[in-house]
Amino acid sequence: MPSLFKRISFEVAGQANERTLTLSSGSNNGHYISLRPLLNPSTPEEKEFPWEWAFAGTNDTVEVNNKENGCQQIFDFGFDANVYLQTPNTHRGPVDTFWATWESGLLKETGTVYPFGKDKDGVDFVELWQPIDAQRDEFVMQDKAESKGRSVTFKVDNDQFYGLVVVVGRWAQGVLAQKGKSTTKGLNFIRSVETVSGEIKNLIQFGSDVSKFPSFFASVKKSDKVEVNGLTWDVIEAYF
Amino acid sequence: MPSLFKRISFEVAGQANERTLTLSSGSNNGHYISLRPLLNPSTPEEKEFPWEWAFAGTNDTVEVNNKENGCQQIFDFGFDANVYLQTPNTHRGPVDTFWATWESGLLKETGTVYPFGKDKDGVDFVELWQPIDAQRDEFVMQDKAESKGRSVTFKVDNDQFYGLVVVVGRWAQGVLAQKGKSTTKGLNFIRSVETVSGEIKNLIQFGSDVSKFPSFFASVKKSDKVEVNGLTWDVIEAYF
Repeated sequence: MPSLFKRISFEVAGQANERTLTLSSGSNNGHYISLRPLLNPSTPEEKEFPWEWAFAGTNDTVEVNNKENGCQQIFDFGFDANVYLQTPNTHRGPVDTFWATWESGLLKETGTVYPFGKDKDGVDFVELWQPIDAQRDEFVMQDKAESKGRSVTFKVDNDQFYGLVVVVGRWAQGVLAQKGKSTTKGLNFIRSVETVSGEIKNLIQFGSDVSKFPSFFASVKKSDKVEVNGLTWDVIEAYF
Repeated sequence: MPSLFKRISFEVAGQANERTLTLSSGSNNGHYISLRPLLNPSTPEEKEFPWEWAFAGTNDTVEVNNKENGCQQIFDFGFDANVYLQTPNTHRGPVDTFWATWESGLLKETGTVYPFGKDKDGVDFVELWQPIDAQRDEFVMQDKAESKGRSVTFKVDNDQFYGLVVVVGRWAQGVLAQKGKSTTKGLNFIRSVETVSGEIKNLIQFGSDVSKFPSFFASVKKSDKVEVNGLTWDVIEAYF
């Protein structure tokens, strides 16, 4: 079953806060994307690139192990904005996380990253995730992690671009990264929601190639190729 | 403006969790009630009385001081389930809390309680509160603390009973405590939501006197007296 989580709190080195509107989409087959735009960018750097982070990947880039009190997920991201941008003092390589579910349905993710290298001290983090009903065009809290509705994933991985779009219920999130660049100019992000009246509302459109994202999800099927303004996407999953 | 908050996380002595479905209602005039029923009572004691806590009070029992980075609220509850039940090792007297608002709209409440007495070590707590749209009959997240819609408060304080019912938007929460008792038999709680179709859905009905709670809020006005199965409530606030 697909899932849509809204982040409630990000605690790092003991300090909790939430400065983003972060949504993480998980498809039926386990493809994932997490977009973490800042709500109120304040520094010049934040205004230039108003993102805490973004990552995405297909299900072959995450190892999931069910445990007694939760679930271990080891991410080796297909796309990681920090790696792409070569941001100094950020983590490289797989991230080992543990997910516990509270009685309320909230998920508590814990892990450690190594921004200064594997041989240096790690930094612990805790993230709280509220499951959201992906069938709704507002943030309606639900008490279970799995949502209903369609689950469609588009992928592109050619000489020029890596891209992934995960559509869960009414919500689509996508990344499209131009290969061979390592600046924000090569990055594109999209987040949209389909309203009750069937209109696609773009909540995030970042980058000069946003017109290359697929925006019509209703009638695709697995293995379709969808061309959008010169870019061909593979439909790697389509459940309705 | 009235407010409705759903608790996301309760951290005490460094351990965070959420085992309740806690809603805190704040009326337009600052009257308040917080009901904290356990979601999955497990021990025999929890099954007997499936509540973490409950409290309520009129606006003269809370001191609010705006500060640079948030808001101090000192509660000297009109009703406190622990005081009523004489629960050992629970706090007595005013509770000094501080409320900070995150960019996301979430509220972080911090404070210290003294369950073993004022002269003993205190216990720090942190609670995260998600503002909810009180006009909706589901838990729709909103990014501001204040909600719209009606704000009606009923109070009773006579020889036999202390009671307070706060109606915020579609949501009503109430407590009714029989005086001179200090057991769970003297306690009554109610939580209801008015659905889009106008039906009042009781989500919580606890106690043998729940039939004495007012359940019709549409046409009352301030200073009205409303009799419900022999108990007379004062309408101390009514905004529509």
